Amino acid sequence: MKFGGTSMADLERIRRVARIVAAEAEAGKRIAVVVSAMAGKTNELVAWTDGAGRSAQGLPESDDEYDVVVGSGEQVTSGLLAMVLRNMGLNARSWMGWQVPIITDDAHGKARIEDIPPERLSAALDGGEIAVIPGFQGVTRDQRITTLGRGGSDTSAVAVAAALGAPCDIYTDVDGVYTTDPRIESKAKRLAKISYEEMLEMASLGAKVLQTRSVELAMAHKVPVRVLSSFTEPGEAENQGTLVCDEEEIVEKRIVSGVAYSRDEAKVTLLGLKDDAGTLSSLFSMLAEANVNVDMIVQGQARVADQANLTFTVGRRDAGRAVEIMNRAQAELGFEELRVDEDVSKVSVVGVGMRSHVGVAQSMFKALADKGIKVQAVSTSEIKISVLIDAAYTELAVRALHAAYGLEQV
Amino acid sequence: MKFGGTSMADLERIRRVARIVAAEAEAGKRIAVVVSAMAGKTNELVAWTDGAGRSAQGLPESDDEYDVVVGSGEQVTSGLLAMVLRNMGLNARSWMGWQVPIITDDAHGKARIEDIPPERLSAALDGGEIAVIPGFQGVTRDQRITTLGRGGSDTSAVAVAAALGAPCDIYTDVDGVYTTDPRIESKAKRLAKISYEEMLEMASLGAKVLQTRSVELAMAHKVPVRVLSSFTEPGEAENQGTLVCDEEEIVEKRIVSGVAYSRDEAKVTLLGLKDDAGTLSSLFSMLAEANVNVDMIVQGQARVADQANLTFTVGRRDAGRAVEIMNRAQAELGFEELRVDEDVSKVSVVGVGMRSHVGVAQSMFKALADKGIKVQAVSTSEIKISVLIDAAYTELAVRALHAAYGLEQV
Repeated sequence: MKFGGTSMADLERIRRVARIVAAEAEAGKRIAVVVSAMAGKTNELVAWTDGAGRSAQGLPESDDEYDVVVGSGEQVTSGLLAMVLRNMGLNARSWMGWQVPIITDDAHGKARIEDIPPERLSAALDGGEIAVIPGFQGVTRDQRITTLGRGGSDTSAVAVAAALGAPCDIYTDVDGVYTTDPRIESKAKRLAKISYEEMLEMASLGAKVLQTRSVELAMAHKVPVRVLSSFTEPGEAENQGTLVCDEEEIVEKRIVSGVAYSRDEAKVTLLGLKDDAGTLSSLFSMLAEANVNVDMIVQGQARVADQANLTFTVGRRDAGRAVEIMNRAQAELGFEELRVDEDVSKVSVVGVGMRSHVGVAQSMFKALADKGIKVQAVSTSEIKISVLIDAAYTELAVRALHAAYGLEQV
Repeated sequence: MKFGGTSMADLERIRRVARIVAAEAEAGKRIAVVVSAMAGKTNELVAWTDGAGRSAQGLPESDDEYDVVVGSGEQVTSGLLAMVLRNMGLNARSWMGWQVPIITDDAHGKARIEDIPPERLSAALDGGEIAVIPGFQGVTRDQRITTLGRGGSDTSAVAVAAALGAPCDIYTDVDGVYTTDPRIESKAKRLAKISYEEMLEMASLGAKVLQTRSVELAMAHKVPVRVLSSFTEPGEAENQGTLVCDEEEIVEKRIVSGVAYSRDEAKVTLLGLKDDAGTLSSLFSMLAEANVNVDMIVQGQARVADQANLTFTVGRRDAGRAVEIMNRAQAELGFEELRVDEDVSKVSVVGVGMRSHVGVAQSMFKALADKGIKVQAVSTSEIKISVLIDAAYTELAVRALHAAYGLEQV
């Protein structure tokens, strides 16, 4: 079981978490609980490390000490939850990352879990103990505290579940994964099941239910992950959530499972670019070297011979850096004009059924055209199609696509 | 070097601490720094554990988890100080209690240090690293986090110094140990040196400069402890502090080194007690069993035969418990009346010179009598004399004794 910062925000909520854990324990389950720091706490600790002179650029000189400071928030909540559980008469104890141990590499501030030897935890669970584990933190092989990067508690939970050979229930402030954002489309339906691949696409496309890394890890180790609401009292109401699982376990595969959107895009257009293979290659090399991730690419012939126009999209926070790089290389790339448009959004349909169905793109374009929405760029994977549109049409596009694939009947 | 919670209260002060540490490092010293949590932080964490259901009576069921929560405050400050030191170009890292390791018994919430294997720390210091160590916390042999009880950071510092064979500088909000409280006697003088035994008496008599346990530990391991101000910038002014050391190192032994006082006393009087040895014995056994520490005792004959009057003192916070115990046993003890007077204080003179000088008590009583101060009870040790007086006369008594022993000329 994993509970996020909102679920652990104060003692009142920690007591509710304890009641949910107790209900599962009373059902005879062996339980490890992974917890986040109180909501807001990690930001406070990070601010202190900034004040202590951690470089604004996030340079790694002091990231080991950053981890010592920032990892303490989860230590507090895990101790508190263990105390509340004991006061309810349950057998519980906290396990710090270094006690389990949750062994990571030494990439401080964004460490990756390498191994979780399950022996100690298993022995504790076999002895009837509920293990409470701070999420987000680990320890290197030479015994230094690490943290996994923001949102790392989901990853901790899935990794612990994988080590124990257990399923993973992620309690959050929503009661599952929806066909689309219910704030935009009130007919959005909770999905009973979604495949790892679909969840990965949804997560990377802006649906913020689970951290992308945790889904990758769950897929790699075939850990069944259930997303549930922590704001339902145990036994109070049906709280089935959404099961994230292997594609094979989903009997009836939908062509489209969900519609996702992201407003964090920026469209960059280069007019009058030199029209040769070398130019494009060096342009994208420069961006890659600067860690700027390019998503969609559209290349067109310009009216002038030997010139091309190029449009591509990057994450909005990378846009400034991309522009800077290209302006610096204007002579080499030879373009005449550079335009940046941040008034765009990306809308995507995701579904494993696309693998065996043709015509999804066609129906998508038709649904958008019917509403007068112009597609500016496209990118696809085996199980998703994304289009770039004018940001003002985002909600309209989401609702149109939700209806076009009959998702209100899921 | 050890810095308390007031010295670590915010980033501004942590930066000043770092400058003091840097000045010592630049003088070529190998340095381990022990730090407290930010002032107020430990109280906040303790309040959370109370809210999590730690029993109000301090029952030990969850004291291991209490330690997990409460020990986190020092983790934060040690990480922050290490970061600030690095940003000044120094080589520094934090060492958690479990990393050093600072091995304690498993008396959670009030653990005692059992061992500090010096190998790892020594190797780090030999490598030119400044070691920053959270005070107050340790680890059991089976790898659970412990805390040493309130004020335990002084003890941590002395223990680390003992393990490294180093002297210990305790930086605090006063610049040394004074002949008496300067708020009461403006002529009070800073002592250049004080013996462990004297410091122990001063600490237990209410002078709050050092924790009693840390002085005991320093005495046992012959660690020279210097008390210094952390509010002086390095090199800015003379900051010699007070050296707490072995009696032999103090060439000119003063008869009286200091005058201490405590208002935390309560006087209990039993009138018409059965006058036999068994009664007294069972009375003090009852108090001892309830952990009530009795300090002074005065027994007098009552006017009625076979009856005695008994006066004794206890700590004020124990008074209620003492009264309850005796009322419950009234039939057995056979006293007629019980009186409690909290309007008393204890004033003491302390000095190793008393061992070889007679007449100290006599001059003390005379100095008090000259001011019309009545002595209600007396207790003595080899190097101190304490008297119980009416609380209203506390300041007058302190000043009279300070003058009587010429302490303004120290």
